[in-house]
Amino acid sequence: MAETGKITKQSEDFPAWYQDVIREGDLAEVAKIVKGCMVIKPHGYAIWEKIQADLDRRFKETGHRNAYFPLLIPMSFIKKEAEHVEGFAPEIAVVTHAGGKPLPEDEQYCIRPTSETIIGHFFAKWISSYRDLPLLINQWANVMRWELHTRMFLRTTEFLWQEGHTAHATHEDALAEVARMLDVYGDFAQEMMAMPVIRGVKTDSEKFAGALETRCIEAMMRDGRALQAGTSHDLGQNFGKAFDVKFQTEKGREEYVWQTSWGVSTRLVGALIMTHSDDSGLILPPALAPVQAVIVPIYKKEEERAQVVEAAQKLAADIRKKGICVEVDDRDGKRPGDKYYEWERKGVPVRIEIGPRDIASGEAMTKLRLSDGKEKMRMDTLAAELPGTLAGFQRFLYERAWKFREDNTVVLNTWDEFREVFGESGGSKFAWCHWDGTRETEALIKEETKVTIRCIPLEGQGPAPEDGTCIRTGRPSRQRVLMARSY
Amino acid sequence: MAETGKITKQSEDFPAWYQDVIREGDLAEVAKIVKGCMVIKPHGYAIWEKIQADLDRRFKETGHRNAYFPLLIPMSFIKKEAEHVEGFAPEIAVVTHAGGKPLPEDEQYCIRPTSETIIGHFFAKWISSYRDLPLLINQWANVMRWELHTRMFLRTTEFLWQEGHTAHATHEDALAEVARMLDVYGDFAQEMMAMPVIRGVKTDSEKFAGALETRCIEAMMRDGRALQAGTSHDLGQNFGKAFDVKFQTEKGREEYVWQTSWGVSTRLVGALIMTHSDDSGLILPPALAPVQAVIVPIYKKEEERAQVVEAAQKLAADIRKKGICVEVDDRDGKRPGDKYYEWERKGVPVRIEIGPRDIASGEAMTKLRLSDGKEKMRMDTLAAELPGTLAGFQRFLYERAWKFREDNTVVLNTWDEFREVFGESGGSKFAWCHWDGTRETEALIKEETKVTIRCIPLEGQGPAPEDGTCIRTGRPSRQRVLMARSY
Repeated sequence: MAETGKITKQSEDFPAWYQDVIREGDLAEVAKIVKGCMVIKPHGYAIWEKIQADLDRRFKETGHRNAYFPLLIPMSFIKKEAEHVEGFAPEIAVVTHAGGKPLPEDEQYCIRPTSETIIGHFFAKWISSYRDLPLLINQWANVMRWELHTRMFLRTTEFLWQEGHTAHATHEDALAEVARMLDVYGDFAQEMMAMPVIRGVKTDSEKFAGALETRCIEAMMRDGRALQAGTSHDLGQNFGKAFDVKFQTEKGREEYVWQTSWGVSTRLVGALIMTHSDDSGLILPPALAPVQAVIVPIYKKEEERAQVVEAAQKLAADIRKKGICVEVDDRDGKRPGDKYYEWERKGVPVRIEIGPRDIASGEAMTKLRLSDGKEKMRMDTLAAELPGTLAGFQRFLYERAWKFREDNTVVLNTWDEFREVFGESGGSKFAWCHWDGTRETEALIKEETKVTIRCIPLEGQGPAPEDGTCIRTGRPSRQRVLMARSY
Repeated sequence: MAETGKITKQSEDFPAWYQDVIREGDLAEVAKIVKGCMVIKPHGYAIWEKIQADLDRRFKETGHRNAYFPLLIPMSFIKKEAEHVEGFAPEIAVVTHAGGKPLPEDEQYCIRPTSETIIGHFFAKWISSYRDLPLLINQWANVMRWELHTRMFLRTTEFLWQEGHTAHATHEDALAEVARMLDVYGDFAQEMMAMPVIRGVKTDSEKFAGALETRCIEAMMRDGRALQAGTSHDLGQNFGKAFDVKFQTEKGREEYVWQTSWGVSTRLVGALIMTHSDDSGLILPPALAPVQAVIVPIYKKEEERAQVVEAAQKLAADIRKKGICVEVDDRDGKRPGDKYYEWERKGVPVRIEIGPRDIASGEAMTKLRLSDGKEKMRMDTLAAELPGTLAGFQRFLYERAWKFREDNTVVLNTWDEFREVFGESGGSKFAWCHWDGTRETEALIKEETKVTIRCIPLEGQGPAPEDGTCIRTGRPSRQRVLMARSY
């Protein structure tokens, strides 16, 4: 991590660059006094609020309703689904004392690492007939997983997320839900985050503890690594059986429900940072930028100040009418250059400069966060043109990220090629490779190279299926899978 | 608690009535398997979301920004402010194990009961100069207090809330913030919840653990008891000193900051219920009702169904254009009467019925949640008139609650009068009484009658100051205070 004020070059030390961008953008800081936790500062939290608002709208449009379940889960619940406890037990924080007394051992709680178990318990109480299905619930909440290696936004012991939990009468309905919500995530990533994603299925060893199948969206960060940005799980009847969630079918038979769960977290803020930002700091897509435009009034003499600030406020009012979040930075005692620098680091998409001469000429200088020079715009039409400018910048960011991914994606056929691409440097690309479909080969590749199978692409998300031979073992394969180093 | 489907009469057993209204309105249920916790079901959570959205807007309009701090607080932090630890230690839940191992005793955590301590720690890192002040932060979060006696929404071991935390350069600025935020709460209660409140100051024995002074809003529930609906604390320099939050003044001196904190919680949902609801179930003010109007299509024959549902959907679309949340209840297999009953229990302000004859005559029957009969309204003007109808119902609820409070407020001068009003029955009224200002007398009255001093009214919020004698001891008093039994 560089000294305050400096941003390490992305090409020199990517992890240090990432931390510097977060600090300089005033997004968050490591809590230190609470193991692996972070404080999300106002600018970082405002991005999360924008993410929440848009996702929440999409969830409601697809028929889901929000609810809230307890933070604490009885330890006995976690143990009811065999794979689930195996996956989560090592990461659990346990409450053993409360109200000034130790709790009896069979009344201890864990802080939720995820809520399938406790929600399963309540689904059993709420569901009795096919008429109660589908039950489509979402929860916005904090969860805790005691991770050894943490990194701001990407992996913290406590994080904020949403977890969808649904119950269905048939496996077919549940699978449709899994696919629907993966598409909600994928569309959100592309439309709002300007982040292209590959939609696929996790291998058995990477799936959620307790799921039949996990679907995911995978995005490429600017160091070529993959980041899992959202998951959607087919839970089958596993939790239904563990928590006795039964319903009477239309024909009067008793059956276990079919469940799904799906989630995204504050990790998305990390994904945003690593998809777009550069050596000057944060870059935010306009759709998720808390401040979409900033106006900096420029004046030297005190008598100019009032006039310039007034013009800036007037322009800001016009811009706000277009539904754009704009701020006027009229702080005294700070030079315009310092203000530019600060807003650039906070990732504001457009900067507008207004000085006395601009007012005279009826023009203002504007600068997009990624353009080299400034552009003159007429003040009387600027507010009307700004939505188009911002939409253009949003598209530009998506296309830039898409091109970056294309430029760093390879199709590999031999182990030599693989070793060359994933060399000693720790760098990464997206590599489409044949794989023999076994857990052993997957583990071997991971052990030898730290490269993992990110997903088996859904139709149209990767190369068309074709027969080939496994890149590591030479055994037969029917389809290429996505391999990369990952976060 | 009555059997499912029945609501106990309010006049017979108020606590049972309260639980029945919650169950029949499908708002929440006791979690049972987690001590003192509840599950907030979708209809209950939707009310909380409406509360959140409006308050959040008010907080942002007054210059506050949201952030997020860790759930876990080092035990050592809680102990740093002497009164704070005394107040909260008995209610704390402690994490002693994590990641499969016991934590060393000096690395144990408590689940936040409130966040003054951990936020104080970060304020110390963020504040160095008067230029950093005021620092105006809010957090939406879950907190935990291990209470012995719990009641849904009113007092649960875990609850959802917001906590504002601010730091200022002078005590004067901090006091202005305390007053400003109390008014935000008071205005919200009156405008959105249709709940009249008295704004006042807590006595020393009822103030927040660690505050110099606590201001509050107090509302009357339909059993005459008082409910503290929001608090705003002047923390003085107590936490500033405990966490070393210093700043350099404009003149270059080092001083401790002056802090405030303020909060409201899911308790407000309980307040809503107990302010308006009746023996038929929940009554919601339109401003906070997740469903503001429901349209029930009425048909007997299958060939009528399509026509009636189509007319209902068309009307709903017109109503939505007015910014009103409306649902069409076109569920099959449920009679109109059963639907009326269900929506009534969910507190929907307006019901609209449309049958084949209504379509022919161009009219629909409407019923307000509290009116005796139904009213005919022309379908082509109904959507345009509905905002006015809902605004009228909102006003009506406020005036009804105001009148109820007026009718149940007394001015008492003698201990005999006091004993008569607060008899054995456990009932309550709002009583304006003189008090000698001592902690001892306050404790004596509480012990003898379970009546507490709810607040010392701010100017204009109670009887004008006047000399008098304490209702219990006869010693001199300068002002009447508000006494009542409370939640």
